[in-house]
Amino acid sequence: MQEKELLIARQNIINIFKASCMVFTQKEIEDMEVTDFGLNDFYSIGLGIIIYVNTEKVCAKELAMTPFQICPQHMHPNIDGVEGKEETFRCRVGEVYLYVNGFPTENIKARIPDKYLKKFNVFHEIILKPGDQYTLKPQTWHWFQAREEGAVLSEFSTHSFDAGDIFYDKNIKRIPKDN
Amino acid sequence: MQEKELLIARQNIINIFKASCMVFTQKEIEDMEVTDFGLNDFYSIGLGIIIYVNTEKVCAKELAMTPFQICPQHMHPNIDGVEGKEETFRCRVGEVYLYVNGFPTENIKARIPDKYLKKFNVFHEIILKPGDQYTLKPQTWHWFQAREEGAVLSEFSTHSFDAGDIFYDKNIKRIPKDN
Repeated sequence: MQEKELLIARQNIINIFKASCMVFTQKEIEDMEVTDFGLNDFYSIGLGIIIYVNTEKVCAKELAMTPFQICPQHMHPNIDGVEGKEETFRCRVGEVYLYVNGFPTENIKARIPDKYLKKFNVFHEIILKPGDQYTLKPQTWHWFQAREEGAVLSEFSTHSFDAGDIFYDKNIKRIPKDN
Repeated sequence: MQEKELLIARQNIINIFKASCMVFTQKEIEDMEVTDFGLNDFYSIGLGIIIYVNTEKVCAKELAMTPFQICPQHMHPNIDGVEGKEETFRCRVGEVYLYVNGFPTENIKARIPDKYLKKFNVFHEIILKPGDQYTLKPQTWHWFQAREEGAVLSEFSTHSFDAGDIFYDKNIKRIPKDN
């Protein structure tokens, strides 16, 4: 993203977090990651991420999504004999469609922009409303999209090392903050 | 607690959770633990606990406390070669005084009822306001008290097995829900 676009994207993400009633420190807001995954199409494929905790064992994050924004298909592989991340997504605000390995759901509710249709291949649908959550085993392909209200999701997981993530769309280049 | 007292205590805890803006499922509210740690003095020593996730690796809970309520001094020991729980407390609502091993703070802010004065022996004070958090290494003695507004805390940790907890006050008997 250009600098000006990034500033606006950051402000949109901050607004979503602030509307969630959750309280963040000034430093957490400053350190927040706002990523377009290198595709320069933030409102289609992007995410805002605040990392609370990332010890050797445990990680907790809050994720914010603009309306219909997609977190692209990825998985967390084993790295150097360390098992990939196990993660639980808990919806706090808005509604999220989560897709994982498994029997494909017919007529999925997500809206994938045409130019990305070939960038997704798991379509087992889980609908998360506020208070709903879902735990992914390590090495599960997954992606998710917010509904029209945008969304805030909490993520509870084992240690996060997002630089090791594998994306299904090979055009994606991400320089994450949690390493 | 008597059944009637327990019902009132539950409703007080539910009110604190509801005022936090966080959304819980009906089942989470029903499964919520409201404990007086066996001391029958809930508003002095007690806690409300909603467990979201407790996999082999990761646990996430929300804790609610009434005004000036204390979670008594305890630690999470190693059990059968498995390292004790590492936990991070993040204050969401209200203000919490957390006490851990370390150089004792002079004139601590907590108010310990006289009859429990001998039931605490770690006094290194950490003040948690909304958005503040603190990570405890395994096997750290700790206790905490809410301020007059009560409090909601998130706890992110490794697997939780509270039946193994060691309490400094030997009168405490707890039958937790997370095992």
